[in-house]
Amino acid sequence: MPPKPRPAVGRSPTGVADPRGEPGGEDAIVAHLAQILGAASGPAGPGEIWIGDDAAVVGAPEGRLVLATDAAVAGVHADLSLVGLGDLGWKALTAAVSDVGAMGARPLQALVTLCAPFGTDLDALTAGMAEASARWACPVVGGDLSTADQVVVSVAVSGVLEGPSPPVTRAGASPGDLIFVTGPLGGSAAGLRLLRGGGGTGDSGAEEALVRAHRRPEARLMEGAAARRAGAEAMIDVSDGLSIDLHRMADASGVGFHLDSVPVAPGATRDEALSGGEDYELVVATTDPDALAAVYAEEGLRPPIVMGRCVADRGDRRLKGDPLPRTGWEHRLG
Amino acid sequence: MPPKPRPAVGRSPTGVADPRGEPGGEDAIVAHLAQILGAASGPAGPGEIWIGDDAAVVGAPEGRLVLATDAAVAGVHADLSLVGLGDLGWKALTAAVSDVGAMGARPLQALVTLCAPFGTDLDALTAGMAEASARWACPVVGGDLSTADQVVVSVAVSGVLEGPSPPVTRAGASPGDLIFVTGPLGGSAAGLRLLRGGGGTGDSGAEEALVRAHRRPEARLMEGAAARRAGAEAMIDVSDGLSIDLHRMADASGVGFHLDSVPVAPGATRDEALSGGEDYELVVATTDPDALAAVYAEEGLRPPIVMGRCVADRGDRRLKGDPLPRTGWEHRLG
Repeated sequence: MPPKPRPAVGRSPTGVADPRGEPGGEDAIVAHLAQILGAASGPAGPGEIWIGDDAAVVGAPEGRLVLATDAAVAGVHADLSLVGLGDLGWKALTAAVSDVGAMGARPLQALVTLCAPFGTDLDALTAGMAEASARWACPVVGGDLSTADQVVVSVAVSGVLEGPSPPVTRAGASPGDLIFVTGPLGGSAAGLRLLRGGGGTGDSGAEEALVRAHRRPEARLMEGAAARRAGAEAMIDVSDGLSIDLHRMADASGVGFHLDSVPVAPGATRDEALSGGEDYELVVATTDPDALAAVYAEEGLRPPIVMGRCVADRGDRRLKGDPLPRTGWEHRLG
Repeated sequence: MPPKPRPAVGRSPTGVADPRGEPGGEDAIVAHLAQILGAASGPAGPGEIWIGDDAAVVGAPEGRLVLATDAAVAGVHADLSLVGLGDLGWKALTAAVSDVGAMGARPLQALVTLCAPFGTDLDALTAGMAEASARWACPVVGGDLSTADQVVVSVAVSGVLEGPSPPVTRAGASPGDLIFVTGPLGGSAAGLRLLRGGGGTGDSGAEEALVRAHRRPEARLMEGAAARRAGAEAMIDVSDGLSIDLHRMADASGVGFHLDSVPVAPGATRDEALSGGEDYELVVATTDPDALAAVYAEEGLRPPIVMGRCVADRGDRRLKGDPLPRTGWEHRLG
């Protein structure tokens, strides 16, 4: 008898089984999860192929293709004793969609790999992802499933940059540009603090909003596209913390910055606003603040909030005159 | 002092640091890995943006867009006591590329998420991925990095289906179609057996080939494109085992099959050929075997090997007259 051809961790030979695969096996699960995802995103377009073949086939977009990916790991990106698997699914898809939006592009399709221990409630995880998929009009067209010791969800999103305007990178800011943010910050970190029982705001409506900001963050897709239309010079989404993300934009652009103020979400602390991360608001640098305000007003979007301006000395990075430390969250792997 | 805004697993505030991020921090690692990947794939095209911004921007392909993703998990897809992290990186990218090739499409770009414990040799992992990226002309244009308890590599590949011919799905096979495979099977499983010390073949050249088939499998991209050009009806790559993958093609097409023979890689067993998986050879069903042979000959490809034919009764699935069990590997998650 030959040895088993592979490590048996989480795998088993299927033997003789019904033609849709064994219950609990990969084929049966994929078919089931595809239903959950399909209900949220509608049928594939004519000539398109979504979940179920070796690869998905979709129409190539008119314009440039934008590609982003993001991983969400249980215990790192989400504490599953405080939030649900559905929240993890929502966040994984939303974070990748936000990256596409931060170039001024529109997301089109998502691919998902789900790695999880035996017995994980994949329905809940997928339902949260399906909600985000519907919210951002970004159907999940394919994916892969694997056993793992820990829940790891990886989402890749393809999007389109329509029209001739360049993408809004991190690298375009110039001295003198005004720096805006699309909304107040620190809500996600404050929501996590509340979930941990670390203190309340005394206002249950505000608390609910903070917890929601942590569990179901929003991607600023309209705002990103509007900033590009308004000729913004540089843009980044606040995923790891305003401070570190602003430093990244300044690094890429070769500028410094002077911030006068940072908008703090009601109930959040200044530290949470500066280095909490996962707010997914967009930081935008522009030479033409009037155009930015005008396009946002036209679109009925919340007016962008000015925080300060870019300066020529790239080593000069301040908030209210004091050096702004590069705080935020970096994965440390070595 | 506010509570830490996130679970601290594998994360740390970066504090005041140099503008490229702290050594060992995410920004520094990404910059370093981008160099390893860039050396293998050359510079981005004009107007393109690869690793380093929120998302990558590339030209949209002429034709339909093909999207596939695959996860490789340490301990599940690779036993790291037997193979290297570079092999895991190679395999993750190759498996996703193979899925694109199995539609008859050409891979264009890859996105990668690397999730790994602190101290993982990401250089080795990335070097293997860079080799595969160069081999399949599929640059890694973006990615994401996270800490995790276990190495999980997820690769998403975008590709193009050029010209008007339809993609070759799993679903197009008809009764009477001949079934081919692009090469002998079981090499990967036999290579793993050898690595485990479960027995040798008595021929070191053959042993080396088997071990290589396990560690560095090849994607049959030319063969997939040639099958599409030759008007093949259905196609699937052998990732989980010939038997289960053939059943999947037959399920999707609504047919049965009678196999007369299965080509076994030298030194592999018949069981390894039937249910070992990870060979990434392509199974092709066609009504026009002469066209298939002619196109393969034109391209200088190894002639496809006939295994049998499709039959009308979808429940009738045989090898040499005996029912063929649905053996192979499915991830079991519930």
